[in-house]
Amino acid sequence: MSRPKNDTLLRALLNEPTPYTPVWIMRQAGRYLPEYNQTRARAGSFLDLCKNPDLATEVTLQPLARFSLDAAILFSDILTIPDAMGLGLYFAEGEGPRFHHPLRDDGDIRKLSAPDPATELRYVLDAVGQIRKALDGAIPLLGFSGSPFTLACYMIDGRSGTDFHETKKMLYQRPALLHQLLEINAHAVTDYLNAQIEAGVQAVMIFDTWGGMLAGEAFHEFSLRYIERVCTQLRREREGQKVPRVVFTKGGGLWLESLAQCGADALGLDWTVDIGKARARVGDRVALQGNLDPAVLLASPDVIHREAARILAGYGYGNGHVFNLGHGISQYTPPENVAALVDAVHSESPQFH
Amino acid sequence: MSRPKNDTLLRALLNEPTPYTPVWIMRQAGRYLPEYNQTRARAGSFLDLCKNPDLATEVTLQPLARFSLDAAILFSDILTIPDAMGLGLYFAEGEGPRFHHPLRDDGDIRKLSAPDPATELRYVLDAVGQIRKALDGAIPLLGFSGSPFTLACYMIDGRSGTDFHETKKMLYQRPALLHQLLEINAHAVTDYLNAQIEAGVQAVMIFDTWGGMLAGEAFHEFSLRYIERVCTQLRREREGQKVPRVVFTKGGGLWLESLAQCGADALGLDWTVDIGKARARVGDRVALQGNLDPAVLLASPDVIHREAARILAGYGYGNGHVFNLGHGISQYTPPENVAALVDAVHSESPQFH
Repeated sequence: MSRPKNDTLLRALLNEPTPYTPVWIMRQAGRYLPEYNQTRARAGSFLDLCKNPDLATEVTLQPLARFSLDAAILFSDILTIPDAMGLGLYFAEGEGPRFHHPLRDDGDIRKLSAPDPATELRYVLDAVGQIRKALDGAIPLLGFSGSPFTLACYMIDGRSGTDFHETKKMLYQRPALLHQLLEINAHAVTDYLNAQIEAGVQAVMIFDTWGGMLAGEAFHEFSLRYIERVCTQLRREREGQKVPRVVFTKGGGLWLESLAQCGADALGLDWTVDIGKARARVGDRVALQGNLDPAVLLASPDVIHREAARILAGYGYGNGHVFNLGHGISQYTPPENVAALVDAVHSESPQFH
Repeated sequence: MSRPKNDTLLRALLNEPTPYTPVWIMRQAGRYLPEYNQTRARAGSFLDLCKNPDLATEVTLQPLARFSLDAAILFSDILTIPDAMGLGLYFAEGEGPRFHHPLRDDGDIRKLSAPDPATELRYVLDAVGQIRKALDGAIPLLGFSGSPFTLACYMIDGRSGTDFHETKKMLYQRPALLHQLLEINAHAVTDYLNAQIEAGVQAVMIFDTWGGMLAGEAFHEFSLRYIERVCTQLRREREGQKVPRVVFTKGGGLWLESLAQCGADALGLDWTVDIGKARARVGDRVALQGNLDPAVLLASPDVIHREAARILAGYGYGNGHVFNLGHGISQYTPPENVAALVDAVHSESPQFH
C-alpha cells in the first residue's frame, strides 16, 4: 500500500513540502450539488443514504467528478456512534439531527457501551472499502468522527437548537456523570476511527462542533481532555504510512495553543480566526486547515478568487496549510463557485511553496 | 441631578473604586419571571409590551423587587430602530424577531434615513422618564441599542436563523452598499442613544450580537468601525456626570485588544473568554463586564456560588469589574437561582476591593 498519486493533502497535514496548497471542502458532497439531491431522493432519508455503502460511495465521488479536489471525505454523519448505541438517530425535515431516546438519567448512561464498529458500524467500513477501491489511489480518503463532547451534547439534549442546556446543566451540576459518559464516548470514537483506518481511510478528522460553546476551563476539562485521549490511542500508521489527525473545534480560536498540544497533526480553523495570527501562535507544532468564510462562496468568482488569495497570503510562505472553508459549505452555493475556489487555490498557491 | 444612591455600577464601569462588585443580568426582566409573563400576556405581543411605556416600566422594575441588583436596564428590544424606519418588526411565536419588509435592493437602502427619536421612538424615551422617576435615584438606569452591523443583519436577512447569508453575501459582493447602510445605522444609533441619555439613562450599552460571526478583517471593517463612530459621537456627560459606554461583541474574544480602543469605557465578555486573561490583555484601558455561563443558573445554588466566586477570583483584585452573565439569562432559570447569584457576588466580592 503506497501513498495516493496526489498526496499533497497528507503531506500538508504532516507539514511536509508540497508544490501547491491542497484544498478540500467540508461537506463537499452535499445539498449544493443537484446530483447529490437526486441520489438522496433515491435513498429515502439522509440516514438511509449514510447507511447504504453503494450510495454513500456514489455521493462521496460526486464532487470529485466536478472539481480537482485534493481529497475525498467519507460521506457519513457525526452521530453514527450514538445511533449504533441505540439512541435512534433521525432527521426532522429542515431541522438538525435528533434522537428518539436521549439520555435521561444515570441508568441510561450506565447502560451505554462503545459499539463494536466491525458489526454495529459495518456500513461505514464497507463504504470506506468501496470508496478506496473507486478512488484507485488517485487522492486520499479522509475519515472522521464527532468529538466525545459533541456526541454527548446530542445524546443528552437529544437535538440541537436548545443551546444544549441539559448538557450544560449536567456539566455544572453533575460533572462526574458527564465524565462517565465522555469516557464511554472517547472509547467509542477511538475504536471507530481505528476501524476506519483499518478499513482504509488515510487521514482522520475529529469534529468538535460544540466545544466552542463552553467556558474556557470547561472546554479543557470536558472536551479537549477527551480529544487528547482519543489522539493518544489512535493508530499512528497503517502499512508504513503515517495517518494524520485533524482536530477542529469550531469557535475554538481562543484556545489554539492548547489545541496544538492535543496530539493532532493539524488544526481546523473556523473563519473568525486570522490564519496568519493563528500560525504565529501555534508555530510549526501543527499544520492548519481552513479557513474561508463559507459565505464568500455566495459571491462572484472574482470575489472568491480575491478572498482565497487573501487567506493564502495570510498563511504565507511554507508548508503546513490545507485550504478549506471555516465551516461546511452552504446549500445555497452555486457549484460553479466551488470550481472558482479550487482553481484560485491551485493557481495562487504555488508561489508560496 | 446627582449620582444614584447606589452608584457602584457607574463607578465600576469607569474603573473607579467600589466597596464590592456590582451585578446586573442581561435580560433580567424576562421570561424566567412569572410576573413578567403575566404582564406580557396582558400587553398582547412582546412588541406591544415594548411600545407601552407603563408596561415597559412595570417589567423593568420587576426583577428589582426580587433581587438586590445594582442596575436597572431599560426594557426594550435591540430592533426598535429598524422598526421605526418602517421595516415592520414582528415576532413569530417561539422564534426570533422578523421584519415584514427586509431590505431587498439598492432602492430600499437609498430610501432609508435615521429616525427622529423624539417622535418616532417617543415610547422608548417616555419609558426612560417613567423608569427614572420610579427608581427615585436608588440605582442607575442603563439604556441600550443594537450595533449598526447587528441591525443591518436583521434588516437585510429579515430574520435570524439564516446565518445571515444575505448580509454576508452583500458584505463580500457589494461592500460599498453595505457601508452605505451602516452609515445610516450608525447615525441612527447615535441619535437614539443620545436621546436616551437626554431622557435620563445613566449608562449605555451597544449590543453587537452578530459581529462575532464575521471574519476578523470583516469585523473590523463592518462592525467595529461603526461602533467607534457611534462612541465618538455620544454625549460624554449629562448634568456633570459621565455617561459610561459598554460595548459587547458576542463571540468577540479574539478581538479584545481592538475593541478596547473603540471608545468604550467597558467591554462585555461572553462566557467563552477567561476573564483573567481578558483583563491581562486589555489592561486598565477598559472595565470588563461579565461573564458567567448562563447555563450555570440552571444548576443548584452551591454550584452557582462556586462558579460566581471563580469569576470574581479570575478577575482578581481591584476596580473595573461589573458582574454579569456572558449572554442573556435563560427562560428556564429558576428565579431563586438569580437570588443565589446576586448574593454570591455581593458576599464574595468585597475581599477583592
